[in-house]
Amino acid sequence: MKSQEQSYAAFREISQSLGIVEAEWHYFQERSTLKQVNRGTRLIQAGEGVERVYFCVEGLFRYFYVLEDGREYNKSFSMEKDFVTSYGAMISGTASHFSVEALEDSLVIEIPYKLLQELMERHHAWERLVRCAVEQLYLKKEERERQLLFLDAAGRYRAFCQAYPGLLNRVPQYHIASYLGISAVSLSRLKKSPHS
Amino acid sequence: MKSQEQSYAAFREISQSLGIVEAEWHYFQERSTLKQVNRGTRLIQAGEGVERVYFCVEGLFRYFYVLEDGREYNKSFSMEKDFVTSYGAMISGTASHFSVEALEDSLVIEIPYKLLQELMERHHAWERLVRCAVEQLYLKKEERERQLLFLDAAGRYRAFCQAYPGLLNRVPQYHIASYLGISAVSLSRLKKSPHS
Repeated sequence: MKSQEQSYAAFREISQSLGIVEAEWHYFQERSTLKQVNRGTRLIQAGEGVERVYFCVEGLFRYFYVLEDGREYNKSFSMEKDFVTSYGAMISGTASHFSVEALEDSLVIEIPYKLLQELMERHHAWERLVRCAVEQLYLKKEERERQLLFLDAAGRYRAFCQAYPGLLNRVPQYHIASYLGISAVSLSRLKKSPHS
Repeated sequence: MKSQEQSYAAFREISQSLGIVEAEWHYFQERSTLKQVNRGTRLIQAGEGVERVYFCVEGLFRYFYVLEDGREYNKSFSMEKDFVTSYGAMISGTASHFSVEALEDSLVIEIPYKLLQELMERHHAWERLVRCAVEQLYLKKEERERQLLFLDAAGRYRAFCQAYPGLLNRVPQYHIASYLGISAVSLSRLKKSPHS
Protein backbone atom coordinates (compact mmCIF):
# COMPACT_ATOMS: atom_id res chain seq x y z
CA MET A 1 0.00 0.00 0.00
CA LYS A 2 1.21 3.48 -0.85
CA SER A 3 2.25 5.88 1.89
CA GLN A 4 0.55 9.26 2.16
CA GLU A 5 3.65 10.86 0.63
CA GLN A 6 3.71 8.45 -2.30
CA SER A 7 0.01 8.94 -2.92
CA TYR A 8 0.38 12.71 -3.15
CA ALA A 9 3.61 12.59 -5.20
CA ALA A 10 2.14 12.86 -8.72
CA PHE A 11 -0.09 15.79 -7.80
CA ARG A 12 2.77 17.45 -5.93
CA GLU A 13 4.91 17.21 -9.06
CA ILE A 14 2.22 18.87 -11.21
CA SER A 15 1.66 21.58 -8.61
CA GLN A 16 5.40 22.31 -8.37
CA SER A 17 5.73 22.58 -12.14
CA LEU A 18 3.02 25.27 -12.04
CA GLY A 19 4.67 27.25 -9.26
CA ILE A 20 2.77 26.17 -6.15
CA VAL A 21 5.06 26.89 -3.24
CA GLU A 22 5.69 24.67 -0.22
CA ALA A 23 3.45 26.57 2.22
CA GLU A 24 0.52 26.52 -0.20
CA TRP A 25 1.02 22.83 -0.83
CA HIS A 26 0.88 22.04 2.88
CA TYR A 27 -2.23 24.15 3.30
CA PHE A 28 -3.84 22.07 0.57
CA GLN A 29 -2.59 18.70 1.78
CA GLU A 30 -3.90 19.23 5.30
CA ARG A 31 -7.39 19.98 3.94
CA SER A 32 -7.74 17.31 1.29
CA THR A 33 -8.34 13.60 1.89
CA LEU A 34 -7.10 10.34 0.41
CA LYS A 35 -9.99 8.09 -0.46
CA GLN A 36 -10.22 4.48 -1.55
CA VAL A 37 -12.92 3.95 -4.15
CA ASN A 38 -14.07 0.41 -4.77
CA ARG A 39 -14.71 -0.84 -8.28
CA GLY A 40 -18.32 -0.16 -9.23
CA THR A 41 -18.69 2.83 -6.88
CA ARG A 42 -20.22 5.95 -8.37
CA LEU A 43 -18.19 9.01 -7.44
CA ILE A 44 -20.76 11.17 -9.22
CA GLN A 45 -24.40 10.25 -9.63
CA ALA A 46 -26.51 11.76 -12.44
CA GLY A 47 -29.26 13.93 -11.02
CA GLU A 48 -27.28 14.92 -7.93
CA GLY A 49 -25.22 18.00 -7.12
CA VAL A 50 -21.42 17.90 -7.27
CA GLU A 51 -19.37 19.44 -4.48
CA ARG A 52 -15.99 17.76 -4.92
CA VAL A 53 -13.29 17.24 -7.49
CA TYR A 54 -10.97 14.25 -7.33
CA PHE A 55 -7.41 13.70 -8.48
CA CYS A 56 -6.86 10.11 -9.58
CA VAL A 57 -3.78 8.58 -7.94
CA GLU A 58 -4.49 5.03 -9.06
CA GLY A 59 -7.39 3.55 -10.97
CA LEU A 60 -9.80 4.16 -13.76
CA PHE A 61 -13.18 5.84 -14.20
CA ARG A 62 -15.82 6.03 -16.87
CA TYR A 63 -18.16 8.97 -17.45
CA PHE A 64 -21.51 7.93 -18.81
CA TYR A 65 -24.97 9.15 -19.68
CA VAL A 66 -28.03 6.95 -19.30
CA LEU A 67 -30.06 7.56 -22.44
CA GLU A 68 -33.86 7.70 -22.48
CA ASP A 69 -34.16 4.13 -23.73
CA GLY A 70 -32.02 2.95 -20.80
CA ARG A 71 -28.82 2.38 -22.77
CA GLU A 72 -25.62 3.75 -21.31
CA TYR A 73 -23.35 5.95 -23.41
CA ASN A 74 -19.73 6.29 -22.27
CA LYS A 75 -18.60 9.81 -22.96
CA SER A 76 -15.07 9.57 -21.61
CA PHE A 77 -12.54 7.86 -19.34
CA SER A 78 -10.16 9.20 -16.69
CA MET A 79 -7.18 7.51 -15.11
CA GLU A 80 -3.95 8.20 -13.22
CA LYS A 81 -3.01 11.92 -13.03
CA ASP A 82 -6.43 13.03 -14.32
CA PHE A 83 -8.93 15.14 -12.46
CA VAL A 84 -12.29 13.44 -12.01
CA THR A 85 -15.56 15.31 -11.53
CA SER A 86 -18.63 16.61 -13.33
CA TYR A 87 -17.06 20.00 -13.82
CA GLY A 88 -19.94 21.89 -15.39
CA ALA A 89 -22.38 20.82 -12.67
CA MET A 90 -19.85 21.62 -9.94
CA ILE A 91 -19.10 25.18 -11.03
CA SER A 92 -22.68 26.05 -11.94
CA GLY A 93 -24.20 24.45 -8.84
CA THR A 94 -26.60 22.27 -10.84
CA ALA A 95 -27.26 18.54 -10.91
CA SER A 96 -24.90 16.43 -12.98
CA HIS A 97 -26.29 15.07 -16.24
CA PHE A 98 -23.93 12.09 -16.18
CA SER A 99 -22.49 9.62 -13.69
CA VAL A 100 -18.86 8.71 -12.98
CA GLU A 101 -18.09 5.13 -11.95
CA ALA A 102 -14.86 3.42 -10.88
CA LEU A 103 -13.95 0.62 -13.29
CA GLU A 104 -11.14 -0.55 -10.96
CA ASP A 105 -10.42 -0.30 -7.26
CA SER A 106 -9.05 3.24 -7.22
CA LEU A 107 -7.29 5.75 -5.00
CA VAL A 108 -8.14 9.45 -5.28
CA ILE A 109 -7.39 12.73 -3.56
CA GLU A 110 -10.72 14.29 -2.63
CA ILE A 111 -10.85 18.08 -2.91
CA PRO A 112 -13.99 19.96 -1.83
CA TYR A 113 -14.91 22.61 -4.40
CA LYS A 114 -14.99 25.18 -1.59
CA LEU A 115 -11.34 24.38 -0.86
CA LEU A 116 -10.44 24.71 -4.53
CA GLN A 117 -12.14 28.12 -4.64
CA GLU A 118 -10.28 29.17 -1.50
CA LEU A 119 -6.95 28.00 -2.95
CA MET A 120 -7.56 29.98 -6.15
CA GLU A 121 -8.24 33.08 -4.09
CA ARG A 122 -5.14 32.55 -1.94
CA HIS A 123 -2.50 32.03 -4.57
CA HIS A 124 -2.01 32.81 -8.25
CA ALA A 125 -0.44 29.41 -8.93
CA TRP A 126 -3.56 27.51 -7.81
CA GLU A 127 -5.57 29.59 -10.25
CA ARG A 128 -3.05 28.60 -12.93
CA LEU A 129 -3.41 24.93 -12.03
CA VAL A 130 -7.19 25.08 -12.37
CA ARG A 131 -6.94 27.07 -15.61
CA CYS A 132 -4.63 24.40 -17.06
CA ALA A 133 -6.89 21.58 -15.82
CA VAL A 134 -9.97 23.15 -17.44
CA GLU A 135 -8.01 23.65 -20.66
CA GLN A 136 -7.25 19.93 -20.70
CA LEU A 137 -10.93 19.12 -20.19
CA TYR A 138 -11.82 21.47 -22.99
CA LEU A 139 -9.21 20.03 -25.38
CA LYS A 140 -10.50 16.54 -24.73
CA LYS A 141 -14.04 17.59 -25.60
CA GLU A 142 -13.03 19.48 -28.73
CA GLU A 143 -11.05 16.46 -29.96
CA ARG A 144 -13.97 14.13 -29.23
CA GLU A 145 -16.35 16.41 -31.15
CA ARG A 146 -14.01 16.35 -34.16
CA GLN A 147 -13.68 12.57 -34.04
CA LEU A 148 -17.45 12.03 -33.92
CA LEU A 149 -17.88 14.33 -36.92
CA PHE A 150 -15.02 13.20 -39.13
CA LEU A 151 -13.93 9.68 -38.27
CA ASP A 152 -15.57 6.38 -39.10
CA ALA A 153 -15.56 3.50 -36.59
CA ALA A 154 -12.05 2.35 -37.59
CA GLY A 155 -10.70 5.89 -37.28
CA ARG A 156 -12.32 6.38 -33.88
CA TYR A 157 -10.85 3.06 -32.74
CA ARG A 158 -7.35 4.15 -33.80
CA ALA A 159 -7.81 7.52 -32.12
CA PHE A 160 -8.93 5.78 -28.91
CA CYS A 161 -5.80 3.58 -28.92
CA GLN A 162 -3.62 6.66 -29.37
CA ALA A 163 -5.40 8.84 -26.80
CA TYR A 164 -5.67 6.11 -24.16
CA PRO A 165 -2.64 3.84 -24.61
CA GLY A 166 -2.94 0.75 -22.43
CA LEU A 167 -6.65 1.20 -21.84
CA LEU A 168 -7.69 -1.34 -24.46
CA ASN A 169 -6.76 -4.13 -22.05
CA ARG A 170 -7.98 -2.44 -18.86
CA VAL A 171 -11.54 -1.60 -19.87
CA PRO A 172 -14.26 -4.22 -20.55
CA GLN A 173 -14.76 -4.36 -24.31
CA TYR A 174 -18.45 -3.40 -24.17
CA HIS A 175 -17.49 -0.16 -22.42
CA ILE A 176 -15.04 0.69 -25.20
CA ALA A 177 -17.67 -0.18 -27.81
CA SER A 178 -20.12 2.16 -26.04
CA TYR A 179 -17.50 4.94 -26.13
CA LEU A 180 -16.87 4.40 -29.84
CA GLY A 181 -20.58 4.24 -30.66
CA ILE A 182 -20.35 0.74 -32.16
CA SER A 183 -21.40 -2.78 -31.16
CA ALA A 184 -19.07 -5.12 -29.26
CA VAL A 185 -19.04 -7.37 -32.35
CA SER A 186 -17.83 -4.52 -34.58
CA LEU A 187 -15.13 -3.68 -32.02
CA SER A 188 -13.94 -7.26 -31.98
CA ARG A 189 -13.74 -7.18 -35.79
CA LEU A 190 -11.74 -3.93 -35.71
CA LYS A 191 -9.25 -5.36 -33.22
CA LYS A 192 -8.60 -8.31 -35.53
CA SER A 193 -8.26 -6.18 -38.66
CA PRO A 194 -4.63 -5.78 -39.82
CA HIS A 195 -5.37 -2.24 -40.98
CA SER A 196 -6.77 -0.89 -37.75
CA MET B 1 -19.12 55.08 -34.48
CA LYS B 2 -18.01 54.06 -31.02
CA SER B 3 -15.08 55.80 -29.35
CA GLN B 4 -12.10 53.75 -28.19
CA GLU B 5 -13.36 54.07 -24.62
CA GLN B 6 -16.87 52.91 -25.51
CA SER B 7 -15.48 49.97 -27.48
CA TYR B 8 -13.42 48.75 -24.54
CA ALA B 9 -16.15 49.38 -21.94
CA ALA B 10 -17.74 45.92 -21.83
CA PHE B 11 -14.40 44.16 -21.52
CA ARG B 12 -13.26 46.68 -18.92
CA GLU B 13 -16.34 45.90 -16.85
CA ILE B 14 -15.67 42.16 -16.95
CA SER B 15 -12.01 42.68 -16.09
CA GLN B 16 -12.88 44.94 -13.15
CA SER B 17 -15.37 42.42 -11.76
CA LEU B 18 -12.54 39.85 -11.73
CA GLY B 19 -10.09 42.15 -9.95
CA ILE B 20 -7.93 43.49 -12.79
CA VAL B 21 -6.44 46.73 -11.48
CA GLU B 22 -6.06 50.00 -13.39
CA ALA B 23 -2.36 49.63 -14.20
CA GLU B 24 -2.85 46.12 -15.57
CA TRP B 25 -5.77 47.28 -17.63
CA HIS B 26 -3.73 50.05 -19.24
CA TYR B 27 -0.87 47.67 -19.95
CA PHE B 28 -3.37 45.48 -21.79
CA GLN B 29 -5.18 48.25 -23.61
CA GLU B 30 -1.96 49.71 -25.02
CA ARG B 31 -1.00 46.33 -26.49
CA SER B 32 -4.33 45.16 -27.90
CA THR B 33 -6.02 46.47 -31.04
CA LEU B 34 -9.55 47.34 -32.10
CA LYS B 35 -10.39 45.70 -35.38
CA GLN B 36 -13.31 46.06 -37.78
CA VAL B 37 -14.30 42.72 -39.28
CA ASN B 38 -16.49 42.80 -42.36
CA ARG B 39 -19.35 40.37 -42.76
CA GLY B 40 -18.12 37.20 -44.47
CA THR B 41 -14.53 37.57 -43.23
CA ARG B 42 -12.95 34.50 -41.70
CA LEU B 43 -11.20 35.38 -38.45
CA ILE B 44 -10.02 31.78 -38.21
CA GLN B 45 -9.43 29.53 -41.18
CA ALA B 46 -9.52 25.73 -40.82
CA GLY B 47 -6.09 24.22 -41.51
CA GLU B 48 -4.21 27.29 -40.28
CA GLY B 49 -2.54 28.09 -36.97
CA VAL B 50 -4.23 30.41 -34.45
CA GLU B 51 -2.23 33.12 -32.71
CA ARG B 52 -4.92 35.48 -31.51
CA VAL B 53 -8.03 35.58 -29.42
CA TYR B 54 -10.73 38.19 -29.99
CA PHE B 55 -13.25 39.81 -27.70
CA CYS B 56 -16.47 40.61 -29.55
CA VAL B 57 -17.56 44.22 -28.97
CA GLU B 58 -20.25 44.21 -31.65
CA GLY B 59 -21.32 41.57 -34.12
CA LEU B 60 -21.82 37.90 -34.59
CA PHE B 61 -19.70 34.90 -35.58
CA ARG B 62 -20.34 31.30 -36.51
CA TYR B 63 -17.93 28.43 -35.87
CA PHE B 64 -18.17 25.73 -38.50
CA TYR B 65 -16.61 22.54 -39.74
CA VAL B 66 -16.52 21.65 -43.43
CA LEU B 67 -17.43 17.96 -43.56
CA GLU B 68 -15.86 15.53 -46.00
CA ASP B 69 -18.81 15.70 -48.37
CA GLY B 70 -18.45 19.48 -48.52
CA ARG B 71 -21.40 20.30 -46.25
CA GLU B 72 -20.85 22.86 -43.53
CA TYR B 73 -21.75 22.07 -39.94
CA ASN B 74 -22.24 24.99 -37.56
CA LYS B 75 -20.92 24.01 -34.18
CA SER B 76 -21.56 27.25 -32.33
CA PHE B 77 -22.14 31.00 -32.40
CA SER B 78 -20.48 33.89 -30.56
CA MET B 79 -21.66 37.44 -30.14
CA GLU B 80 -21.28 40.55 -27.98
CA LYS B 81 -19.15 40.00 -24.81
CA ASP B 82 -17.98 36.57 -26.01
CA PHE B 83 -14.40 35.57 -26.69
CA VAL B 84 -13.83 34.37 -30.22
CA THR B 85 -11.04 32.01 -31.24
CA SER B 86 -10.20 28.38 -31.93
CA TYR B 87 -9.01 27.85 -28.39
CA GLY B 88 -7.73 24.29 -28.60
CA ALA B 89 -5.62 25.02 -31.67
CA MET B 90 -4.29 28.24 -30.12
CA ILE B 91 -3.09 26.73 -26.85
CA SER B 92 -1.73 23.54 -28.40
CA GLY B 93 -0.06 25.31 -31.33
CA THR B 94 -1.80 23.16 -33.94
CA ALA B 95 -3.94 23.99 -36.98
CA SER B 96 -7.60 24.74 -36.34
CA HIS B 97 -10.06 22.07 -37.39
CA PHE B 98 -12.83 24.61 -37.90
CA SER B 99 -13.29 28.11 -39.29
CA VAL B 100 -14.82 31.20 -37.67
CA GLU B 101 -16.70 33.63 -39.91
CA ALA B 102 -18.34 36.98 -39.23
CA LEU B 103 -22.07 36.85 -39.95
CA GLU B 104 -22.38 40.63 -39.49
CA ASP B 105 -20.03 43.58 -39.78
CA SER B 106 -18.34 43.26 -36.41
CA LEU B 107 -15.98 45.03 -34.06
CA VAL B 108 -13.49 43.04 -31.97
CA ILE B 109 -10.58 43.59 -29.62
CA GLU B 110 -7.66 41.61 -31.01
CA ILE B 111 -5.42 40.02 -28.36
CA PRO B 112 -2.26 38.17 -29.44
CA TYR B 113 -1.94 34.87 -27.55
CA LYS B 114 1.58 35.91 -26.50
CA LEU B 115 0.11 38.98 -24.83
CA LEU B 116 -2.50 36.86 -23.05
CA GLN B 117 0.25 34.55 -21.78
CA GLU B 118 2.26 37.53 -20.60
CA LEU B 119 -0.77 39.01 -18.82
CA MET B 120 -1.43 35.72 -17.03
CA GLU B 121 2.18 35.65 -15.84
CA ARG B 122 2.05 39.27 -14.69
CA HIS B 123 -1.10 39.26 -12.63
CA HIS B 124 -3.27 36.75 -10.81
CA ALA B 125 -6.49 38.43 -11.95
CA TRP B 126 -5.69 37.91 -15.65
CA GLU B 127 -5.22 34.22 -14.93
CA ARG B 128 -8.63 34.28 -13.25
CA LEU B 129 -10.19 35.96 -16.27
CA VAL B 130 -8.81 33.30 -18.61
CA ARG B 131 -9.84 30.51 -16.23
CA CYS B 132 -13.40 31.86 -16.18
CA ALA B 133 -13.43 32.27 -19.96
CA VAL B 134 -12.30 28.67 -20.52
CA GLU B 135 -14.92 27.48 -18.04
CA GLN B 136 -17.60 29.22 -20.12
CA LEU B 137 -16.28 27.53 -23.27
CA TYR B 138 -16.34 24.20 -21.50
CA LEU B 139 -19.87 24.68 -20.15
CA LYS B 140 -21.09 25.53 -23.64
CA LYS B 141 -19.61 22.32 -25.03
CA GLU B 142 -20.94 20.13 -22.25
CA GLU B 143 -24.42 21.55 -22.71
CA ARG B 144 -24.25 21.03 -26.47
CA GLU B 145 -23.15 17.41 -25.96
CA ARG B 146 -26.12 16.80 -23.69
CA GLN B 147 -28.56 18.41 -26.13
CA LEU B 148 -27.33 16.31 -29.06
CA LEU B 149 -27.71 13.14 -26.98
CA PHE B 150 -31.02 13.79 -25.29
CA LEU B 151 -33.10 16.29 -27.23
CA ASP B 152 -35.06 15.83 -30.41
CA ALA B 153 -35.21 18.58 -33.05
CA ALA B 154 -37.99 20.48 -31.25
CA GLY B 155 -36.08 20.31 -27.95
CA ARG B 156 -32.86 21.51 -29.57
CA TYR B 157 -34.77 24.38 -31.18
CA ARG B 158 -36.19 25.45 -27.82
CA ALA B 159 -32.75 25.16 -26.21
CA PHE B 160 -31.28 27.32 -28.99
CA CYS B 161 -33.91 30.01 -28.43
CA GLN B 162 -33.12 30.01 -24.71
CA ALA B 163 -29.33 29.95 -25.04
CA TYR B 164 -29.18 32.55 -27.79
CA PRO B 165 -32.10 34.92 -27.23
CA GLY B 166 -32.48 37.31 -30.13
CA LEU B 167 -30.32 35.25 -32.47
CA LEU B 168 -33.25 33.66 -34.25
CA ASN B 169 -33.78 36.88 -36.17
CA ARG B 170 -30.11 37.78 -36.66
CA VAL B 171 -28.82 34.53 -38.19
CA PRO B 172 -29.85 33.25 -41.65
CA GLN B 173 -32.24 30.36 -41.15
CA TYR B 174 -30.08 27.81 -42.98
CA HIS B 175 -27.26 28.52 -40.52
CA ILE B 176 -29.55 27.83 -37.57
CA ALA B 177 -30.80 24.65 -39.27
CA SER B 178 -27.16 23.55 -39.74
CA TYR B 179 -26.53 24.16 -36.03
CA LEU B 180 -29.60 22.17 -35.03
CA GLY B 181 -28.78 19.33 -37.41
CA ILE B 182 -32.07 19.64 -39.31
CA SER B 183 -33.20 20.89 -42.71
CA ALA B 184 -34.33 24.47 -43.28
CA VAL B 185 -37.80 23.12 -44.03
CA SER B 186 -37.98 21.35 -40.66
CA LEU B 187 -36.83 24.53 -38.93
CA SER B 188 -39.53 26.54 -40.64
CA ARG B 189 -42.10 23.98 -39.46
CA LEU B 190 -40.78 24.17 -35.87
CA LYS B 191 -41.01 27.95 -35.86
CA LYS B 192 -44.68 27.77 -36.85
CA SER B 193 -45.57 25.09 -34.31
CA PRO B 194 -47.51 26.45 -31.30
CA HIS B 195 -45.76 23.92 -29.02
CA SER B 196 -42.19 24.78 -29.89
